[in-house]
Amino acid sequence: MKRELLTAKRNFPLSKVYQLLEPGPVVLVSTARKGRMNVMTMSWHTMIDFEPPIVGCVISNRNYTFDILKATKECVINIPTKELAKKVVGCGNASGKRIDKFKTFGLTPVAASYVQAPLIAECYANLECRIVDTRMTAKYCLFILEVLKAWIDPKRKQPRTIHHLGQGAFMVAGETIKLPSKMN
Amino acid sequence: MKRELLTAKRNFPLSKVYQLLEPGPVVLVSTARKGRMNVMTMSWHTMIDFEPPIVGCVISNRNYTFDILKATKECVINIPTKELAKKVVGCGNASGKRIDKFKTFGLTPVAASYVQAPLIAECYANLECRIVDTRMTAKYCLFILEVLKAWIDPKRKQPRTIHHLGQGAFMVAGETIKLPSKMN
Repeated sequence: MKRELLTAKRNFPLSKVYQLLEPGPVVLVSTARKGRMNVMTMSWHTMIDFEPPIVGCVISNRNYTFDILKATKECVINIPTKELAKKVVGCGNASGKRIDKFKTFGLTPVAASYVQAPLIAECYANLECRIVDTRMTAKYCLFILEVLKAWIDPKRKQPRTIHHLGQGAFMVAGETIKLPSKMN
Repeated sequence: MKRELLTAKRNFPLSKVYQLLEPGPVVLVSTARKGRMNVMTMSWHTMIDFEPPIVGCVISNRNYTFDILKATKECVINIPTKELAKKVVGCGNASGKRIDKFKTFGLTPVAASYVQAPLIAECYANLECRIVDTRMTAKYCLFILEVLKAWIDPKRKQPRTIHHLGQGAFMVAGETIKLPSKMN
Protein backbone atom coordinates (compact mmCIF):
# COMPACT_ATOMS: atom_id res chain seq x y z
CA MET A 1 0.00 0.00 0.00
CA LYS A 2 1.18 3.47 -0.84
CA ARG A 3 1.20 5.93 2.01
CA GLU A 4 2.36 8.87 -0.10
CA LEU A 5 -0.95 9.02 -2.00
CA LEU A 6 -2.51 10.31 1.18
CA THR A 7 -0.67 13.59 0.74
CA ALA A 8 -3.47 14.59 -1.66
CA LYS A 9 -5.99 14.22 1.17
CA ARG A 10 -6.57 16.33 4.26
CA ASN A 11 -7.99 15.58 7.67
CA PHE A 12 -11.73 16.26 7.79
CA PRO A 13 -13.30 17.25 11.13
CA LEU A 14 -15.20 14.40 12.79
CA SER A 15 -17.95 16.86 13.76
CA LYS A 16 -18.76 17.31 10.05
CA VAL A 17 -18.75 13.67 8.97
CA TYR A 18 -22.58 13.61 8.96
CA GLN A 19 -22.47 16.08 6.05
CA LEU A 20 -20.80 13.41 3.92
CA LEU A 21 -23.15 10.51 4.71
CA GLU A 22 -26.50 12.18 5.42
CA PRO A 23 -27.21 12.88 1.71
CA GLY A 24 -27.26 9.09 1.19
CA PRO A 25 -24.44 8.34 -1.28
CA VAL A 26 -23.46 4.89 -2.43
CA VAL A 27 -20.24 4.01 -0.62
CA LEU A 28 -17.46 1.46 -0.97
CA VAL A 29 -16.66 -0.47 2.21
CA SER A 30 -13.07 -1.66 2.27
CA THR A 31 -11.74 -4.30 4.63
CA ALA A 32 -8.60 -6.36 5.22
CA ARG A 33 -8.03 -9.70 6.90
CA LYS A 34 -4.80 -11.70 7.04
CA GLY A 35 -3.20 -9.46 4.43
CA ARG A 36 -6.06 -9.85 1.96
CA MET A 37 -8.07 -6.77 1.07
CA ASN A 38 -11.64 -6.55 -0.12
CA VAL A 39 -14.19 -3.91 -1.10
CA MET A 40 -17.97 -3.98 -1.41
CA THR A 41 -20.63 -1.57 -2.64
CA MET A 42 -23.15 -0.43 -0.03
CA SER A 43 -26.11 1.93 0.18
CA TRP A 44 -27.88 0.95 3.37
CA HIS A 45 -26.37 3.28 5.96
CA THR A 46 -27.50 6.06 8.27
CA MET A 47 -25.93 8.50 10.67
CA ILE A 48 -26.78 7.67 14.29
CA ASP A 49 -24.90 10.38 16.19
CA PHE A 50 -22.90 13.51 15.38
CA GLU A 51 -19.73 13.35 17.49
CA PRO A 52 -18.09 11.04 17.78
CA PRO A 53 -19.73 10.16 14.47
CA ILE A 54 -21.71 6.93 14.85
CA VAL A 55 -22.98 5.21 11.71
CA GLY A 56 -25.34 2.28 11.19
CA CYS A 57 -24.60 -0.01 8.21
CA VAL A 58 -26.66 -2.94 6.97
CA ILE A 59 -24.55 -5.57 5.22
CA SER A 60 -26.12 -8.86 4.18
CA ASN A 61 -24.72 -12.02 5.75
CA ARG A 62 -24.49 -13.40 2.22
CA ASN A 63 -21.69 -10.90 1.54
CA TYR A 64 -18.05 -11.86 2.01
CA THR A 65 -17.57 -8.56 3.89
CA PHE A 66 -20.03 -9.62 6.60
CA ASP A 67 -17.67 -12.28 7.96
CA ILE A 68 -14.62 -10.04 7.63
CA LEU A 69 -16.34 -7.27 9.60
CA LYS A 70 -17.36 -9.68 12.34
CA ALA A 71 -13.79 -10.96 12.60
CA THR A 72 -11.78 -7.75 12.26
CA LYS A 73 -14.24 -5.12 13.62
CA GLU A 74 -12.76 -2.58 11.22
CA CYS A 75 -13.46 -1.06 7.83
CA VAL A 76 -13.13 2.10 5.78
CA ILE A 77 -16.19 3.79 4.28
CA ASN A 78 -15.05 5.37 1.00
CA ILE A 79 -17.26 7.81 -0.89
CA PRO A 80 -17.01 7.61 -4.69
CA THR A 81 -18.24 10.06 -7.31
CA LYS A 82 -19.77 9.69 -10.75
CA GLU A 83 -16.49 8.97 -12.57
CA LEU A 84 -16.17 5.79 -10.49
CA ALA A 85 -19.72 4.53 -11.20
CA LYS A 86 -18.57 1.64 -13.40
CA LYS A 87 -16.10 0.41 -10.78
CA VAL A 88 -18.76 0.81 -8.07
CA VAL A 89 -21.19 -1.40 -9.99
CA GLY A 90 -18.38 -3.85 -10.76
CA CYS A 91 -17.62 -4.18 -7.04
CA GLY A 92 -21.35 -4.74 -6.40
CA ASN A 93 -21.64 -7.45 -9.06
CA ALA A 94 -18.67 -9.53 -7.93
CA SER A 95 -17.66 -11.33 -4.74
CA GLY A 96 -14.31 -10.86 -3.05
CA LYS A 97 -14.39 -14.56 -2.27
CA ARG A 98 -13.35 -15.21 -5.84
CA ILE A 99 -11.46 -12.14 -7.07
CA ASP A 100 -9.18 -9.36 -5.87
CA LYS A 101 -11.46 -6.40 -6.54
CA PHE A 102 -8.71 -3.81 -6.06
CA LYS A 103 -6.78 -5.36 -8.94
CA THR A 104 -9.81 -6.23 -11.08
CA PHE A 105 -11.29 -2.73 -10.94
CA GLY A 106 -8.07 -0.73 -10.75
CA LEU A 107 -8.63 0.72 -7.29
CA THR A 108 -5.62 1.93 -5.30
CA PRO A 109 -5.34 0.87 -1.65
CA VAL A 110 -3.68 3.34 0.70
CA ALA A 111 -2.63 2.62 4.28
CA ALA A 112 -5.02 4.05 6.86
CA SER A 113 -3.99 5.56 10.21
CA TYR A 114 -6.15 3.70 12.71
CA VAL A 115 -7.35 0.55 10.98
CA GLN A 116 -5.86 -2.29 8.94
CA ALA A 117 -8.45 -1.79 6.19
CA PRO A 118 -7.17 0.32 3.28
CA LEU A 119 -8.42 3.69 2.11
CA ILE A 120 -9.38 3.80 -1.58
CA ALA A 121 -7.31 6.57 -3.15
CA GLU A 122 -9.79 7.26 -6.00
CA CYS A 123 -12.65 8.13 -3.61
CA TYR A 124 -12.98 11.79 -2.63
CA ALA A 125 -13.55 11.00 1.07
CA ASN A 126 -12.59 8.13 3.38
CA LEU A 127 -13.81 7.31 6.88
CA GLU A 128 -11.76 4.98 9.06
CA CYS A 129 -14.25 3.03 11.20
CA ARG A 130 -14.31 0.62 14.11
CA ILE A 131 -17.34 -1.53 14.90
CA VAL A 132 -18.61 -0.60 18.34
CA ASP A 133 -21.83 -2.63 18.63
CA THR A 134 -22.88 -5.93 17.02
CA ARG A 135 -25.98 -6.60 19.10
CA MET A 136 -28.23 -6.01 16.07
CA THR A 137 -26.03 -7.95 13.65
CA ALA A 138 -27.62 -11.37 14.06
CA LYS A 139 -31.19 -10.13 13.61
CA TYR A 140 -30.80 -7.21 11.17
CA CYS A 141 -27.26 -7.52 9.74
CA LEU A 142 -26.84 -4.06 11.26
CA PHE A 143 -23.38 -2.97 12.37
CA ILE A 144 -22.84 0.13 14.53
CA LEU A 145 -19.59 1.89 13.61
CA GLU A 146 -17.64 4.76 15.07
CA VAL A 147 -15.70 6.94 12.66
CA LEU A 148 -12.18 7.33 14.08
CA LYS A 149 -10.67 9.52 11.38
CA ALA A 150 -11.95 11.18 8.22
CA TRP A 151 -10.03 12.18 5.09
CA ILE A 152 -11.11 14.40 2.24
CA ASP A 153 -9.73 15.63 -1.07
CA PRO A 154 -9.81 19.40 -0.52
CA LYS A 155 -9.76 20.08 -4.26
CA ARG A 156 -13.15 18.42 -4.82
CA LYS A 157 -15.90 21.00 -4.43
CA GLN A 158 -19.50 19.79 -4.91
CA PRO A 159 -18.56 16.15 -5.48
CA ARG A 160 -21.05 14.42 -7.78
CA THR A 161 -21.91 11.50 -5.51
CA ILE A 162 -24.12 8.69 -6.83
CA HIS A 163 -27.30 7.46 -5.14
CA HIS A 164 -28.75 4.05 -5.89
CA LEU A 165 -32.30 3.96 -7.28
CA GLY A 166 -32.29 0.18 -7.65
CA GLN A 167 -31.42 -2.28 -10.42
CA GLY A 168 -28.43 -0.39 -11.76
CA ALA A 169 -30.03 3.05 -11.90
CA PHE A 170 -28.23 5.82 -10.05
CA MET A 171 -29.20 9.40 -9.34
CA VAL A 172 -26.22 11.71 -9.71
CA ALA A 173 -25.98 14.60 -7.24
CA GLY A 174 -27.36 17.76 -8.87
CA GLU A 175 -27.44 21.42 -7.88
CA THR A 176 -27.07 22.63 -4.29
CA ILE A 177 -29.68 24.95 -2.77
CA LYS A 178 -29.36 26.82 0.54
CA LEU A 179 -32.19 27.70 2.91
CA PRO A 180 -32.13 29.42 6.30
CA SER A 181 -32.04 26.46 8.66
CA LYS A 182 -31.56 25.96 12.39
CA MET A 183 -30.83 22.28 11.79
CA ASN A 184 -27.31 20.91 12.04
CA MET B 1 -58.74 14.79 6.79
CA LYS B 2 -59.62 14.43 3.14
CA ARG B 3 -59.73 10.90 1.83
CA GLU B 4 -60.53 11.94 -1.76
CA LEU B 5 -57.09 13.49 -2.26
CA LEU B 6 -55.73 9.98 -2.26
CA THR B 7 -57.34 9.34 -5.63
CA ALA B 8 -54.31 11.08 -7.15
CA LYS B 9 -52.06 8.42 -5.63
CA ARG B 10 -51.61 4.76 -6.50
CA ASN B 11 -50.52 1.75 -4.53
CA PHE B 12 -46.76 1.20 -4.80
CA PRO B 13 -45.41 -2.37 -4.46
CA LEU B 14 -43.82 -3.05 -1.08
CA SER B 15 -41.03 -4.96 -2.83
CA LYS B 16 -39.89 -1.68 -4.44
CA VAL B 17 -40.01 0.60 -1.41
CA TYR B 18 -36.21 0.41 -1.06
CA GLN B 19 -35.95 2.28 -4.37
CA LEU B 20 -37.59 5.31 -2.74
CA LEU B 21 -35.48 5.43 0.43
CA GLU B 22 -32.12 4.00 -0.61
CA PRO B 23 -31.06 7.20 -2.49
CA GLY B 24 -31.19 9.00 0.89
CA PRO B 25 -33.85 11.73 0.51
CA VAL B 26 -34.91 14.06 3.28
CA VAL B 27 -38.32 12.85 4.47
CA LEU B 28 -41.20 14.23 6.51
CA VAL B 29 -42.35 11.96 9.34
CA SER B 30 -46.01 12.52 10.17
CA THR B 31 -47.67 11.30 13.35
CA ALA B 32 -50.96 11.64 15.23
CA ARG B 33 -51.83 11.28 18.90
CA LYS B 34 -55.15 12.02 20.55
CA GLY B 35 -56.42 13.76 17.43
CA ARG B 36 -53.40 16.04 17.18
CA MET B 37 -51.16 15.71 14.15
CA ASN B 38 -47.49 16.54 13.82
CA VAL B 39 -44.74 16.38 11.23
CA MET B 40 -40.96 16.50 11.49
CA THR B 41 -38.08 16.65 9.03
CA MET B 42 -35.73 13.68 9.07
CA SER B 43 -32.66 12.50 7.15
CA TRP B 44 -31.22 9.76 9.31
CA HIS B 45 -32.79 6.62 7.89
CA THR B 46 -31.69 3.42 6.17
CA MET B 47 -33.30 0.41 4.58
CA ILE B 48 -32.79 -2.73 6.68
CA ASP B 49 -34.67 -5.35 4.64
CA PHE B 50 -36.42 -5.58 1.27
CA GLU B 51 -39.75 -7.33 1.89
CA PRO B 52 -41.53 -6.69 4.01
CA PRO B 53 -39.68 -3.39 3.84
CA ILE B 54 -37.93 -2.72 7.15
CA VAL B 55 -36.51 0.74 7.79
CA GLY B 56 -34.29 2.11 10.54
CA CYS B 57 -34.91 5.74 11.61
CA VAL B 58 -32.93 7.80 14.09
CA ILE B 59 -35.04 10.48 15.77
CA SER B 60 -33.57 12.51 18.62
CA ASN B 61 -35.25 12.20 22.00
CA ARG B 62 -35.28 16.01 22.06
CA ASN B 63 -37.88 15.93 19.27
CA TYR B 64 -41.60 16.04 20.03
CA THR B 65 -42.04 13.16 17.55
CA PHE B 66 -39.86 10.84 19.67
CA ASP B 67 -42.46 10.63 22.44
CA ILE B 68 -45.36 10.32 19.99
CA LEU B 69 -43.65 7.43 18.21
CA LYS B 70 -42.97 5.64 21.47
CA ALA B 71 -46.62 6.03 22.49
CA THR B 72 -48.42 5.35 19.20
CA LYS B 73 -45.94 3.02 17.41
CA GLU B 74 -47.07 4.47 14.10
CA CYS B 75 -46.04 7.08 11.55
CA VAL B 76 -46.01 7.91 7.86
CA ILE B 77 -42.75 8.57 6.02
CA ASN B 78 -43.53 11.15 3.33
CA ILE B 79 -41.03 11.96 0.58
CA PRO B 80 -41.00 15.58 -0.56
CA THR B 81 -39.42 17.11 -3.66
CA LYS B 82 -37.65 20.39 -4.36
CA GLU B 83 -40.81 22.52 -4.57
CA LEU B 84 -41.46 21.70 -0.92
CA ALA B 85 -37.95 22.60 0.30
CA LYS B 86 -39.07 25.74 2.16
CA LYS B 87 -41.81 23.84 4.02
CA VAL B 88 -39.37 21.02 4.78
CA VAL B 89 -36.92 23.45 6.39
CA GLY B 90 -39.79 25.18 8.18
CA CYS B 91 -40.85 21.87 9.71
CA GLY B 92 -37.23 21.25 10.75
CA ASN B 93 -36.86 24.66 12.39
CA ALA B 94 -40.05 24.49 14.49
CA SER B 95 -41.40 22.18 17.20
CA GLY B 96 -44.85 20.64 17.08
CA LYS B 97 -45.02 21.20 20.83
CA ARG B 98 -45.79 24.82 20.11
CA ILE B 99 -47.42 25.01 16.67
CA ASP B 100 -49.64 23.04 14.29
CA LYS B 101 -47.15 22.52 11.48
CA PHE B 102 -49.77 21.31 8.99
CA LYS B 103 -51.55 24.67 9.31
CA THR B 104 -48.43 26.80 9.62
CA PHE B 105 -46.75 25.36 6.52
CA GLY B 106 -49.87 24.67 4.45
CA LEU B 107 -49.51 20.90 4.33
CA THR B 108 -52.61 18.78 3.63
CA PRO B 109 -53.24 15.74 5.85
CA VAL B 110 -54.95 12.77 4.20
CA ALA B 111 -56.32 9.73 6.02
CA ALA B 112 -54.05 6.68 5.77
CA SER B 113 -55.27 3.08 5.41
CA TYR B 114 -53.42 1.26 8.19
CA VAL B 115 -52.27 3.92 10.64
CA GLN B 116 -53.76 6.89 12.47
CA ALA B 117 -50.94 9.16 11.29
CA PRO B 118 -51.83 11.20 8.20
CA LEU B 119 -50.31 11.06 4.75
CA ILE B 120 -49.06 14.42 3.46
CA ALA B 121 -50.83 15.05 0.14
CA GLU B 122 -48.10 17.33 -1.26
CA CYS B 123 -45.39 14.64 -1.03
CA TYR B 124 -44.93 12.44 -4.10
CA ALA B 125 -44.70 9.21 -2.05
CA ASN B 126 -46.01 8.10 1.35
CA LEU B 127 -45.11 5.04 3.42
CA GLU B 128 -47.47 3.92 6.19
CA CYS B 129 -45.28 2.46 8.95
CA ARG B 130 -45.58 0.57 12.21
CA ILE B 131 -42.76 0.41 14.74
CA VAL B 132 -41.72 -3.21 15.15
CA ASP B 133 -38.65 -2.94 17.40
CA THR B 134 -37.65 -0.36 20.01
CA ARG B 135 -34.76 -2.23 21.63
CA MET B 136 -32.26 0.27 20.21
CA THR B 137 -34.36 3.33 21.00
CA ALA B 138 -33.01 4.05 24.47
CA LYS B 139 -29.35 3.85 23.45
CA TYR B 140 -29.37 5.13 19.86
CA CYS B 141 -32.81 6.78 19.37
CA LEU B 142 -33.15 4.17 16.62
CA PHE B 143 -36.63 2.94 15.71
CA ILE B 144 -37.15 -0.12 13.51
CA LEU B 145 -40.22 0.31 11.27
CA GLU B 146 -42.12 -1.96 8.94
CA VAL B 147 -43.73 -0.35 5.90
CA LEU B 148 -47.32 -1.61 5.73
CA LYS B 149 -48.49 0.23 2.63
CA ALA B 150 -46.87 2.55 0.11
CA TRP B 151 -48.47 5.24 -2.04
CA ILE B 152 -47.03 7.07 -5.02
CA ASP B 153 -48.08 9.81 -7.41
CA PRO B 154 -47.82 7.99 -10.76
CA LYS B 155 -47.50 11.27 -12.68
CA ARG B 156 -44.18 12.16 -11.04
CA LYS B 157 -41.34 10.73 -13.08
CA GLN B 158 -37.79 11.39 -11.85
CA PRO B 159 -38.88 13.25 -8.71
CA ARG B 160 -36.33 15.88 -7.67
CA THR B 161 -35.83 14.73 -4.10
CA ILE B 162 -33.69 16.81 -1.74
CA HIS B 163 -30.73 15.49 0.24
CA HIS B 164 -29.41 17.30 3.30
CA LEU B 165 -25.78 18.42 3.19
CA GLY B 166 -25.96 20.09 6.59
CA GLN B 167 -26.73 23.57 7.87
CA GLY B 168 -29.51 24.34 5.41
CA ALA B 169 -27.70 23.20 2.27
CA PHE B 170 -29.48 20.59 0.17
CA MET B 171 -28.38 18.64 -2.86
CA VAL B 172 -31.19 18.34 -5.39
CA ALA B 173 -31.47 15.04 -7.27
CA GLY B 174 -29.80 15.38 -10.67
CA GLU B 175 -29.59 13.17 -13.74
CA THR B 176 -30.17 9.42 -13.68
CA ILE B 177 -27.57 7.04 -15.13
CA LYS B 178 -28.03 3.33 -15.77
CA LEU B 179 -25.36 0.64 -15.55
CA PRO B 180 -25.57 -3.14 -15.98
CA SER B 181 -26.03 -4.30 -12.40
CA LYS B 182 -26.82 -7.61 -10.71
CA MET B 183 -27.70 -5.71 -7.52
CA ASN B 184 -31.32 -5.24 -6.44
